[in-house]
Amino acid sequence: MAAPIFIDEAQVGAYIETLARFGAFQETGVRRLVYSPEWVAAMDQCRNWAQQEGLEVSNDAVGNPWARIPGTSPGQSIVTGSHIDSQRSGGRYDGALGAIGGILALGALKAQVGTPKRTLEAVVLCEEEGSRFPTAGFWGSRAIVGKISPDDAESVLGYGGETIADAMRGVGLDPCDIASAQRNDIETFIELHIEQGPVLEDAGLSVAIVDAITGIAQFEVTLNGEQNHAGAFTMDLRRDPMAGFAEITGRVIDYAHRLGRPAVTTVGRCDVDPGASAIIPRSVRFSIDARHPDSEARNRMYSVHDALIREVVQRRGLDVKIRKMIDLEPCKSDPGLLNALQSGADLQGIETLTMPSGAGHDTQQMSLICKTAMVFVRSAGGRSHTPEEFSTVSDCAKGIRVVAEALRQQAY
Amino acid sequence: MAAPIFIDEAQVGAYIETLARFGAFQETGVRRLVYSPEWVAAMDQCRNWAQQEGLEVSNDAVGNPWARIPGTSPGQSIVTGSHIDSQRSGGRYDGALGAIGGILALGALKAQVGTPKRTLEAVVLCEEEGSRFPTAGFWGSRAIVGKISPDDAESVLGYGGETIADAMRGVGLDPCDIASAQRNDIETFIELHIEQGPVLEDAGLSVAIVDAITGIAQFEVTLNGEQNHAGAFTMDLRRDPMAGFAEITGRVIDYAHRLGRPAVTTVGRCDVDPGASAIIPRSVRFSIDARHPDSEARNRMYSVHDALIREVVQRRGLDVKIRKMIDLEPCKSDPGLLNALQSGADLQGIETLTMPSGAGHDTQQMSLICKTAMVFVRSAGGRSHTPEEFSTVSDCAKGIRVVAEALRQQAY
Repeated sequence: MAAPIFIDEAQVGAYIETLARFGAFQETGVRRLVYSPEWVAAMDQCRNWAQQEGLEVSNDAVGNPWARIPGTSPGQSIVTGSHIDSQRSGGRYDGALGAIGGILALGALKAQVGTPKRTLEAVVLCEEEGSRFPTAGFWGSRAIVGKISPDDAESVLGYGGETIADAMRGVGLDPCDIASAQRNDIETFIELHIEQGPVLEDAGLSVAIVDAITGIAQFEVTLNGEQNHAGAFTMDLRRDPMAGFAEITGRVIDYAHRLGRPAVTTVGRCDVDPGASAIIPRSVRFSIDARHPDSEARNRMYSVHDALIREVVQRRGLDVKIRKMIDLEPCKSDPGLLNALQSGADLQGIETLTMPSGAGHDTQQMSLICKTAMVFVRSAGGRSHTPEEFSTVSDCAKGIRVVAEALRQQAY
Repeated sequence: MAAPIFIDEAQVGAYIETLARFGAFQETGVRRLVYSPEWVAAMDQCRNWAQQEGLEVSNDAVGNPWARIPGTSPGQSIVTGSHIDSQRSGGRYDGALGAIGGILALGALKAQVGTPKRTLEAVVLCEEEGSRFPTAGFWGSRAIVGKISPDDAESVLGYGGETIADAMRGVGLDPCDIASAQRNDIETFIELHIEQGPVLEDAGLSVAIVDAITGIAQFEVTLNGEQNHAGAFTMDLRRDPMAGFAEITGRVIDYAHRLGRPAVTTVGRCDVDPGASAIIPRSVRFSIDARHPDSEARNRMYSVHDALIREVVQRRGLDVKIRKMIDLEPCKSDPGLLNALQSGADLQGIETLTMPSGAGHDTQQMSLICKTAMVFVRSAGGRSHTPEEFSTVSDCAKGIRVVAEALRQQAY
């Protein structure tokens, strides 16, 4: 049996701290938006690290750096990586861990195992969060799987009104070349990421193997009733959309509680018109975000929600409009990769649990062209998308080790 | 038995239409804010009408015109009237009906019954809605009962940043004289007003006698939980203030439904932080407006709400802050006046119902210095505070007749 691959915790810690300086604010905050000066500097840093590890470095048309160890045999590439952009008020770990981890895993494999049969690659994805260009989420991975249309770059607008095409030109990239970023020679993609939830912490474990990325739908529901005087209108004659909203929200949330893990349902947004203390509202518009990693269970949830909404609005004399804003099927991990990750964790003596990801990831895009799986590392308090996000260096290194072992199994 | 007092429907209709021209917008909208040019013109019109009816007209320090028929015997005045300012997007009837009705009632009494023993007065109140100066609500009636402090005029600010003192000076009133508007020689105040709710329409009647103005409290409730990722955070580990908000709102509204008339509870405002579809909110701040015309029943409602909120937040692991924004005791009508109004309606052959007012009125202020009661006229669809507000000329005239009969009983 091969010796476990060694990953230096001190180096992991130093890389995380160093990368966090690009776009740092306050004590631990990171705001590193795609194609910003701090993003450029962070990308340069990653390329330097990859070169230090003796990896071949190239850049694609949307600005994803690729670091590779060419294999001795033919065959498609075995790839790992994650994104390097952050939320506007983000932290040090979301994305960054997997980007750093990919470079360190390949460096360790090259140094400790040597030249692979199959080509190994670590990619640093340019954009995942949509935090500068709200409709550009997964820009880096979408370019790789060929899901950016020729007109997109000139039409995607940032919060400041700029096009993403202009932002690309500003950092020396030509938006006309985006199609060249597409890859059709990738067999496997493994993404390391922080969990962003409390499951590992709750279980007292460092690392999870992700067997699926949850399916998600977001609905915008608008309930219309009749605006009237809060004092003069008796309860029995009201058509109050707030009453309908409260009942629907309470019931969809309770339903997810009853289903239990991994079902989740969130009502995060609610706009009341006119929104005055002494007026029965005319309308309430709100979001329902409901997720389940099992396709059938997911659809059952939505049917239950739909029936429940229709029943409430009919009984309360309200009108309803439901718009589906997002609808993404669950993304199952490849069973062979799950086995490889599990035996890698066993070899490293790392206890894991298996769980679905409740958040979306670049891996969903990559699954359109290759086998995929993910590894999660424990997040303190389950926090993410905040400067408070934190994972221990020890946990981060464990995650990288598990990924490195799986890469070894696939590539050597 | 005396002949019923006659009120000319055609004149009522013409007066309502004429007054609605001052501040008219769209087909039927009225925006007549206190101390605006259209308010000045409307006040001039009312003074002209009062003079045409042979009434003695004077003006007080805040701009309330008073029209009187001096009585032959000593004793305090018998007064009727309502306000002439409107909501920003108001209609033709709220306030205006009772202001016009007072002048027409006194004119009819003078012409048809002659000189009263007791002095009769019709007042056109300058301000009730707080629609130009949000903290100046009941400005006209508060001046009469002596509830405006000497500093108020210079500190009350309008939505445009102006002081109400400047607005007064702009129409020739001296804010230093406000105290002179106070009256201590009023025995009775009867206010005619549109219902602003659907009770009369629901009952198929034109006129209601108001036995109380409801007591009201408005609370601002803030629930704090923990902001987290909507996908990655399992239901069992959430502290979701939206779930608490939905449960509390549903339960306080259901409780008012179970209590039935005249209890009402409204949640009209809800602010979610941060308010994004994919984020479990950090906090939800909302209003609870709960009203009951019986003092004890009112306090019981608030105790039930309070216990319910405390139970929900404890069970759901939330923090709560409750601020009482408004707290007004119910205002009971004078039993003698209720009898006078009822026998007046009987004399006129007008079927009535007796109900509380769920909305606030100048009458609440006036009740601090005299006996009070109100008369309501049916509102189409229960609508008010909107250009759609509508009452038939026939219903309006009936309301004026009932008031005129009660004034006759008190003054002759």
